[in-house]
Amino acid sequence: MTVSDRWLLPDGVEDILPPLAGQIESLRRDVMDTCQRWGYQLVIPPLIEYLESLFTGTGHNLQLQTFKLTDQLTGRMMGVRADMTPQAARIDAHTLGQEGVTRLCYAGHILHTRPKHMLTGRTPVQAGCELFGSASEAADLEIINLMLETLRVAGLPEVHLDLAHVAIYETLIDEAGFDRDTSAAIFDAMGRKSGPELDKLLGHCPAGSAGARLRELARVSGGPEALDEARTILQGGSDNLSAALDQLGRIAEMLEQSYPDISYGFDFCELRGYSYHTGVVFAAYVPGHGDSVAKGGRYDAIGSDFGRSRPATGFSLDIRALVALGERPAGSASAVWAPADEDPALEEVITSLRQTDTVVRALPEDSHADPSARGCDRKLVKQGDRWVVQPLS
Amino acid sequence: MTVSDRWLLPDGVEDILPPLAGQIESLRRDVMDTCQRWGYQLVIPPLIEYLESLFTGTGHNLQLQTFKLTDQLTGRMMGVRADMTPQAARIDAHTLGQEGVTRLCYAGHILHTRPKHMLTGRTPVQAGCELFGSASEAADLEIINLMLETLRVAGLPEVHLDLAHVAIYETLIDEAGFDRDTSAAIFDAMGRKSGPELDKLLGHCPAGSAGARLRELARVSGGPEALDEARTILQGGSDNLSAALDQLGRIAEMLEQSYPDISYGFDFCELRGYSYHTGVVFAAYVPGHGDSVAKGGRYDAIGSDFGRSRPATGFSLDIRALVALGERPAGSASAVWAPADEDPALEEVITSLRQTDTVVRALPEDSHADPSARGCDRKLVKQGDRWVVQPLS
Repeated sequence: MTVSDRWLLPDGVEDILPPLAGQIESLRRDVMDTCQRWGYQLVIPPLIEYLESLFTGTGHNLQLQTFKLTDQLTGRMMGVRADMTPQAARIDAHTLGQEGVTRLCYAGHILHTRPKHMLTGRTPVQAGCELFGSASEAADLEIINLMLETLRVAGLPEVHLDLAHVAIYETLIDEAGFDRDTSAAIFDAMGRKSGPELDKLLGHCPAGSAGARLRELARVSGGPEALDEARTILQGGSDNLSAALDQLGRIAEMLEQSYPDISYGFDFCELRGYSYHTGVVFAAYVPGHGDSVAKGGRYDAIGSDFGRSRPATGFSLDIRALVALGERPAGSASAVWAPADEDPALEEVITSLRQTDTVVRALPEDSHADPSARGCDRKLVKQGDRWVVQPLS
Repeated sequence: MTVSDRWLLPDGVEDILPPLAGQIESLRRDVMDTCQRWGYQLVIPPLIEYLESLFTGTGHNLQLQTFKLTDQLTGRMMGVRADMTPQAARIDAHTLGQEGVTRLCYAGHILHTRPKHMLTGRTPVQAGCELFGSASEAADLEIINLMLETLRVAGLPEVHLDLAHVAIYETLIDEAGFDRDTSAAIFDAMGRKSGPELDKLLGHCPAGSAGARLRELARVSGGPEALDEARTILQGGSDNLSAALDQLGRIAEMLEQSYPDISYGFDFCELRGYSYHTGVVFAAYVPGHGDSVAKGGRYDAIGSDFGRSRPATGFSLDIRALVALGERPAGSASAVWAPADEDPALEEVITSLRQTDTVVRALPEDSHADPSARGCDRKLVKQGDRWVVQPLS
């Protein structure tokens, strides 16, 4: 290994430098402050946990994305968190153990074994909110509203929201009574929207059966009209199905009233990435970026995996990606340059300026330094006995 | 594994809950803001790197503290950062590659294979500042000043600063010309302050020799008078030694002038934990806590290990430990409770309040909830057509 190799970073891993680091920190703070003003309390889940605990209630996909470590103290396997939502659910179910409604928010680095997307790499900065203890639609609406509010804070110019409901797919698969392998093949073909494969897997199902409905529904996606198509396809089906469609309809209504600028659509069978979800799910997209910028939904099952059944809904997003895609105004350079002078009066002025302002102190090496290259727009100069702040040039 | 085991966390790993999580976030922001007002620019180093890169220029101890991971993309070994200072040095030397003085700050989780201290466990929240490109004493003084300022921000009641200089020990060991094993044994005995062992290892050295001086110096520690004792012991020694003592003297002078409330002392041979340091080193302590709460010093060698020689000095601290030891006033509960009412006028009032205030919205499950148990001190009530904020009473 040569010296020049030594500082190469792994793929999907990056140094975040000024001014980008400051923009990420600033958005992180604004998102957390927004969540807290909606009553969500900050928790800091641990970076590592035992694998059993990290994987409880989650899907196979998360296991593939999780880096494994050996605990030297016990010899047991631990993992570095790849998603903080299940951690929040564990905290709600056990560590906090509160009755009634609990609102939690969090922000921190997570690690993925493989980059999910170029913008986020393998070390996304995940932030999110989770609402526990309410099975009500009001809770789902609050979470969708808060997610859209954080995207507004992030300065995303044009947001599209995809809505789905896990219960529709699961009810139909249950009713169809396929074996496990067939169900998995259908799920896979749905995810890839492969019409021919679905024809092969479901083509034999008699008209009006759950399998046939699934096959028709896979073809339906798009704006408000898609909801009507789904209603036609699922007409006469079980109550679960109509309840799910009604709920999607009411969310669409809320969006039209409160967020007329946001386009939305339905994709009833797109369930990839919703491994632990059980109800309404949603994902936000922006033009020109294939991956969702924020996503979430209802997941009522994780709590019971931790021994305490709790209804739950929430969303999470990647601060790093939002900074790249958003259009927040960057802060302009504003700092005062102070000379390398040992005058105690200068010391006092600097201390007082630093209550609110940035002061960069020149060091002996700085005799030929250019203060503007160090982000300064003003300087301290001595006039008579007093030190005063002046514009640079 | 039973359900009750599933949520057990590994030793030294914890869920950080409200209100502690909020206090940690608040101190983290205040420390970062302080550093930035001193001209330090935020960087976000990656959570993982290749081992060669993480370990460049660092000591054996850091390698033991680092969790190792296999990169699935390349099969190479990576590590989770156990210290962000070497990462900042790499960023300065390579990623930024600026000429002249560069000031960087950072804050984030690090991971340790074993807990270094009960308060910090295995997932400390490290924050720090690093100043590159200046070999001047002014740079060392700036870093010590800034460290003490962040400890003031953290509300530490009584700080004691230990000062040392790596060059003293290294110069004497070099001059004595011991073999590697003997040097290691001496270093070890010094760290444990084992007089009998040092007598055995160094007792044969003739008076006035480097070895004899080392043995005498190991017995010297304490307040300002210790510096005079060290001067006597090292009298007639090489220029390196007197220069180091002079520098410590000037730092002591600065402390007496600027920080009369802070006690300080010298421990010339206490070098444990300063694995990559080369000059003045310092560690801050508070009563009743055995581990240092912040530490740092000069480390001019790491940059050259990355192929670009840069003088460097800096400090780092653990935000989690500072919150536990500091006496910052905790923020009092302040939030408004809003009823589960679908009146559009209520919606508007809530949106407007949330510009600056926290509003917790009641959900259908909350009909018997106690707003004060949710951190609220006020509530929204309807008076005629208008929604007004009232104290809870």
